[in-house]
Amino acid sequence: MRRMDENMPFLLRYENVAWYENGAVRILDRRVYPAEVRFVECGSYHEVAQAIADMVTQSAGPYTAVGMGMALAAHECREKGRAEQSAFLKRASYDLSHARPTAANRYGTVTEDCRRAAETAMEAGSDPVRSVVEATVESLNRRYSAMQLVGDHLAELIPDGGAILTQCFGETIIGTVMRAARKLGKEFRVFCAETRPYLQGARLTAGCFAEMGFDTTVLTDNMAAYAMEREGIDLVTSAADTIAMDGHIANKIGTFQLAILAKYFEIPYFVTGIPDRDKQTKDDIVIELRDPAQVLSFRGITHAAAGVKAIYPSFDVTPPHLISGVVTDRGTFTPYTLEHYFDAGEKKFY
Amino acid sequence: MRRMDENMPFLLRYENVAWYENGAVRILDRRVYPAEVRFVECGSYHEVAQAIADMVTQSAGPYTAVGMGMALAAHECREKGRAEQSAFLKRASYDLSHARPTAANRYGTVTEDCRRAAETAMEAGSDPVRSVVEATVESLNRRYSAMQLVGDHLAELIPDGGAILTQCFGETIIGTVMRAARKLGKEFRVFCAETRPYLQGARLTAGCFAEMGFDTTVLTDNMAAYAMEREGIDLVTSAADTIAMDGHIANKIGTFQLAILAKYFEIPYFVTGIPDRDKQTKDDIVIELRDPAQVLSFRGITHAAAGVKAIYPSFDVTPPHLISGVVTDRGTFTPYTLEHYFDAGEKKFY
Repeated sequence: MRRMDENMPFLLRYENVAWYENGAVRILDRRVYPAEVRFVECGSYHEVAQAIADMVTQSAGPYTAVGMGMALAAHECREKGRAEQSAFLKRASYDLSHARPTAANRYGTVTEDCRRAAETAMEAGSDPVRSVVEATVESLNRRYSAMQLVGDHLAELIPDGGAILTQCFGETIIGTVMRAARKLGKEFRVFCAETRPYLQGARLTAGCFAEMGFDTTVLTDNMAAYAMEREGIDLVTSAADTIAMDGHIANKIGTFQLAILAKYFEIPYFVTGIPDRDKQTKDDIVIELRDPAQVLSFRGITHAAAGVKAIYPSFDVTPPHLISGVVTDRGTFTPYTLEHYFDAGEKKFY
Repeated sequence: MRRMDENMPFLLRYENVAWYENGAVRILDRRVYPAEVRFVECGSYHEVAQAIADMVTQSAGPYTAVGMGMALAAHECREKGRAEQSAFLKRASYDLSHARPTAANRYGTVTEDCRRAAETAMEAGSDPVRSVVEATVESLNRRYSAMQLVGDHLAELIPDGGAILTQCFGETIIGTVMRAARKLGKEFRVFCAETRPYLQGARLTAGCFAEMGFDTTVLTDNMAAYAMEREGIDLVTSAADTIAMDGHIANKIGTFQLAILAKYFEIPYFVTGIPDRDKQTKDDIVIELRDPAQVLSFRGITHAAAGVKAIYPSFDVTPPHLISGVVTDRGTFTPYTLEHYFDAGEKKFY
């Protein structure tokens, strides 16, 4: 089976994200990568769900992990009777897709595909585990195919020989924009804001770009204005956790101020992703507030004095007047006309 | 002798910054504070100079350390003949003040005061070590007296019950603005950007404010826009390493983007300090580029992949159109009329 993760950096290859083999799923622990390349080994699908809940893998990683978790579930119930197997797989599909509640509907699309593949294989007397692994890879391939169009459109916007600034870890778009740039024969430099408190920009994004031969530079989050003024940034870009129909987008904390700074320096800011019809306006966006202790510590060592508080909003909301364009699989839209994205019909995206 | 560090937080009390006692100078190691309260013990003035060069103490800390280093030098040469003692102290004054080259002239004002105090004591047959300790405390008191006026003017600008946002560690102004606020009976909340890569905001500034009973909240550097939009920040303020006569100021990296964000949110940004007549325009400001490896690591652990580069400018330059006022000991000036600061005569500042 052809895999869409060919010629991708280490971090994006399916078998490094999460992989089923011999009754176990191995998940790369992104919480410590690349300082340590360590895999969490799961002997049951419950352990896979727990690993997702514990953020062992994040960004697009759970799409692979829930599928491989379903393969493990098919393995776990191999000795049971047919009816029991079906019940077990139904339960597994629910548990895995609900490992993190906010994206349960998206993960559920993958796990239900996997469940149906297992049922079909069992009916036909073939190996359900193998079928589920294949169904997962097919599902990931479909996701990459759609996202490749986003990457293609973003790559068109980047001037050859130019420089982009991004932050956090927009997993799939990173892979596809690099592939698109290679196809177009474009070179560009990449500046990654490190993205405190988890440093996904420094730890994950920068490594992917550098591994594929892009000139890659990390900066602390307080150096963005300096870089925009003095390093020749041509374009600022980020993914989005939500693109509301009124043109407000929610993304990892820090995106909002990058967009303000880009406006100040007259640099375009492009957001990548698919408009979300479930979110009509910014008021439909809820900002998750995480444990503030994460801000006061790093790698478990607290660095602030007793009595000091912190805030930790995971996301912020960027208004449309700071967004130069929303880059989708159907082209680039202004944030003020997102309803036209759906002129070509509805879109299921996972 | 009355000390101006009374009722100051732990970090700002002279004996915690650096102190001479029984043939040794103890310097608080701010590189690890407050996770660890550890002192570097120096048995010779050379070790004091080395500790300053190694950033064991920084911000205003070296003003105390060089004075106490001179006391140690007076102790070290106690058995020598008079002529040798003078030569030794002259050498010590030079070496200590040049521990870090850029502020050598300022540190030299302290060490030369100390040297003269030692000479006078030796002539009079009294204890030169004790005289140097006293001369150091007097010098620090003079500095605090002048800076108290800056703190008074800044405190006037903060609305009672309001909130300020700052970053890094403007040591002396932190102490004096708190004292001024107490005198005026003003309360305010403090938001501290953590200030990567060394986290002086989270480690040093936040602790000082919290210790004195101010409601203090740390944020990562990428949360500044979020805080300005949602936490009711009334005023952004920072110290400055240089205030050029054309109204451009140089300060710790990150200041520039805080000023841009403050402008976007229509929040005033006030810089504290004394205009520097040696710097006529922004072209006289040189930005020190430090070791980029510091950005790719934290507490000695590298978190980025091989092949990833980084930048580490220590400072950035904020233009006058983003500055609402320059708060000095002689009142608050617009950055466009700084020459009027000197209408009341020249100013030596250390």
